[in-house]
Amino acid sequence: MAADHQQERLEPDWVVGFTEGEGCFRVSINRQPKMSTGWQVLPEFRLVQHKRNKATLQKLQKFFGAGSVVVNHGTRLELRIRKLDDLMKAVAFFERHNFHTTKQSDFRIFAQILSMMESREHLTHEGLAKIAKLAWKINRKIKPAYLESSETIRQKPN
Amino acid sequence: MAADHQQERLEPDWVVGFTEGEGCFRVSINRQPKMSTGWQVLPEFRLVQHKRNKATLQKLQKFFGAGSVVVNHGTRLELRIRKLDDLMKAVAFFERHNFHTTKQSDFRIFAQILSMMESREHLTHEGLAKIAKLAWKINRKIKPAYLESSETIRQKPN
Repeated sequence: MAADHQQERLEPDWVVGFTEGEGCFRVSINRQPKMSTGWQVLPEFRLVQHKRNKATLQKLQKFFGAGSVVVNHGTRLELRIRKLDDLMKAVAFFERHNFHTTKQSDFRIFAQILSMMESREHLTHEGLAKIAKLAWKINRKIKPAYLESSETIRQKPN
Repeated sequence: MAADHQQERLEPDWVVGFTEGEGCFRVSINRQPKMSTGWQVLPEFRLVQHKRNKATLQKLQKFFGAGSVVVNHGTRLELRIRKLDDLMKAVAFFERHNFHTTKQSDFRIFAQILSMMESREHLTHEGLAKIAKLAWKINRKIKPAYLESSETIRQKPN
């Protein structure tokens, strides 16, 4: 029985249910002098599991056709997807398969930020300020450093 | 969009994926002088969520046709299923829909304990000792008080 279920393919609805609990949509905004704005926007989707479930993360990696399975913290691993093209594919999947918890609203914001990045809005100060405010809604506890920075205060976006 | 997805029915595969992360199969063994063995076996299946997802737990309650949505701890709620008949229905569902993580082995042990309880094995000292050892495997960190008790040491089961 244990061997059988390890070989099964993942069902799309299972992936959605699993992501409700174990998945995280996140957008970091880090200082990066090489960027025109001085800041880099880093969206990320990750799924975290104890290392005993590495095979499950690898099946998810295959399912999304993207990402890397890396150490998250201690005995925990994560499937991490960071490339914009790969994230757009994952977003397209979750557009077709809705969440049943408040994960749906985090996802909507994440999808909106990705769409803004596709339109290169993150390369302008105005777009960046908008993204930072949206990112704060999904990251919740962590106010982006960008929103605390002197640039933001000087520029007073909106 | 948010309103739409709130009204959808839950897909069986979604329930399995959600349970991988948010579900817990647990068996407690508590002192109970009224029982012939002096101990009571209390199996439980629960799904935990922040209170903002109360509606999701209520949909799960409807899905399983069983359980109560009650406070878990602080701002967390749980759907808690404790009645043996209701647990048997949930077990029958998960028998048809395998887990993809090590939750599967916890579930197999839980199902085995329930099956032993159906055969009333938990009412004998021998059955109880076997159940206590199985329960320890899924509860992991918490050794059942029964296994530490003087009755167990006196009786030396197995």
